Amino acid sequence: MTNKISLMAKETVETPAVISRQLRANRDVLEDLSRRIREKKFRFIATCARGSSDHACAFAKYVLEIGTGLPVVSFAPSVSTLYGGVLKLQDSLFIAVSQSGRSPDLVQATQQAKDQGAFILCICNDATSPLVALADCFLPLHAGPENSVAATKSYIASLTALLQLSAIWNFDSGLLPALEKLPDQLDRGLSADWSEPVELLAASSNLFTVGRGPGFGIALESALKFKETSYIHAEAFSAAEVKHGPMSLVADGYPVLLFRQRDQSWDSVGELAENFREKGGAVFTVQEGLLSKGILPIESNIHPFCQLPVMIQSFYIMAEKITQMRGLDPDNPRHLKKVTETV
Amino acid sequence: MTNKISLMAKETVETPAVISRQLRANRDVLEDLSRRIREKKFRFIATCARGSSDHACAFAKYVLEIGTGLPVVSFAPSVSTLYGGVLKLQDSLFIAVSQSGRSPDLVQATQQAKDQGAFILCICNDATSPLVALADCFLPLHAGPENSVAATKSYIASLTALLQLSAIWNFDSGLLPALEKLPDQLDRGLSADWSEPVELLAASSNLFTVGRGPGFGIALESALKFKETSYIHAEAFSAAEVKHGPMSLVADGYPVLLFRQRDQSWDSVGELAENFREKGGAVFTVQEGLLSKGILPIESNIHPFCQLPVMIQSFYIMAEKITQMRGLDPDNPRHLKKVTETV
Repeated sequence: MTNKISLMAKETVETPAVISRQLRANRDVLEDLSRRIREKKFRFIATCARGSSDHACAFAKYVLEIGTGLPVVSFAPSVSTLYGGVLKLQDSLFIAVSQSGRSPDLVQATQQAKDQGAFILCICNDATSPLVALADCFLPLHAGPENSVAATKSYIASLTALLQLSAIWNFDSGLLPALEKLPDQLDRGLSADWSEPVELLAASSNLFTVGRGPGFGIALESALKFKETSYIHAEAFSAAEVKHGPMSLVADGYPVLLFRQRDQSWDSVGELAENFREKGGAVFTVQEGLLSKGILPIESNIHPFCQLPVMIQSFYIMAEKITQMRGLDPDNPRHLKKVTETV
Repeated sequence: MTNKISLMAKETVETPAVISRQLRANRDVLEDLSRRIREKKFRFIATCARGSSDHACAFAKYVLEIGTGLPVVSFAPSVSTLYGGVLKLQDSLFIAVSQSGRSPDLVQATQQAKDQGAFILCICNDATSPLVALADCFLPLHAGPENSVAATKSYIASLTALLQLSAIWNFDSGLLPALEKLPDQLDRGLSADWSEPVELLAASSNLFTVGRGPGFGIALESALKFKETSYIHAEAFSAAEVKHGPMSLVADGYPVLLFRQRDQSWDSVGELAENFREKGGAVFTVQEGLLSKGILPIESNIHPFCQLPVMIQSFYIMAEKITQMRGLDPDNPRHLKKVTETV
């Protein structure tokens, strides 16, 4: 156990300040963007991203489909960059999300979307990047330099940017004031007591992470972190899909980590947790409410969509501890670089 | 090792006859459907499915986007069934794929899509199912009864239905005659020699399956089969995403199974295989061409899109053997039923 203060931990701790700055700074950009979006009457939304940024898009798919009624398609860069397919993107909002804005395939795919008449929104941490140069509208993450290979603050900033977009676009009178409380909630989330599963997970080689609806995006992100920094094979499932086959892996102390936000999925995710427990799984559920065995707490009375950034914030702290406990350096995962170039 | 002839093996062997029957029987339905589709000038396509059928949709996303230029959105039933979201689906083609046509969430989501003005195409094995009752057009799988919990022939029939749809819709002069050869190619694929990795994989607890473009759908399906019948934790990645984090798990004999079709992704998947090998992975690549160490063969000169059903056909035979070698019964995976009901 090295116990040095890692970049990953340091940058996670910066998140509340990042989100506070970002929410304030982007409000006017978003008011203006939302006016333009409402005038344009888009037929659908396309998202384009890789890695953690794509997990923010998986979260946003639910938030935006529920909020706007527009279908959200996940744009696969290779359709254009590799196969020469030309997608008909007239009357669409194309949202490219990237921390660095420098992955060549993302830049190329966004250029093509622009050529096809899509309206380009870039959500990015680097205002000088080639991705941002293509934008009709640019929404900065305001995360400051991110040097840890494992994204943390930039992921939560991406979630927040997409939440703020949806809230302002849809005049969401619940979500708008809820977002203002998010920086403080994130701050308190840094010291949530998630110690219960740490030893078990640090000793595990495999686990499932599960979420439903927007929570699936958070489940994807947590599984990626387990893999990249701890070399634990965690795989993410939507609560709906995990019963189609994967369930048969769960037995005899198999660890399952469920993200359970307080929304319409609450009961079904609770039943699924019970189901896993009956099959012998070691089940941990991230949720608000009474603390008891197997519960990883977040504070109560947070807007359901805002619970998810708070959950992943507490998760990052735990994941970093587990990595150190396994004798690994969270900042130097083997084989990885900060900017991944796909050919 | 039980060595009984499982339903899974029996139904896999039926596939060539199923595909031969299906291609012939559906030709006129598809000619008529394609005329109607071309008149309607759809703006996008939505697919809706669970489990193996959803993996057929992941394959079709690439085939249809490349062939038609229409974006393909994956419809998440819970947006409507759980969150009450109402998606704007006017001017869209909604493709519901299901072996049984009886999953309640799929039926409910399809009803809502119909109410919203989508044109409903059902690809299904059971003409009497509630899903088919909602269809504007019904494309039967002609797979006959499928009693194995692990879908095999119905998955390949779904791939073929989607390929035939794309070929006829786009007057694809390469794919149309290529499909006619598919039944014989599938038949020969049943006896492909994939013995090399069997012992290693049967002794493994974890592995990655990887594909690029339409091959990602096949990678998803193979990972699901490893999990559901062999209790091996296999996870599927697109060749583009696996470098964003998951790569760090691969070391010291970690098994990786790559599906490499002969199309524009050929070089990049080959480089990725080399990359995994340098990191110590035990790499097996499914591909045409010269037989050598680490190559799982399929015959040469098959249309790239048709290579993928042939690959998964040979894979099913291998997966069934691995399951028996692990002392498990392929037809009785723990915890699973044939029709999964999601609430």
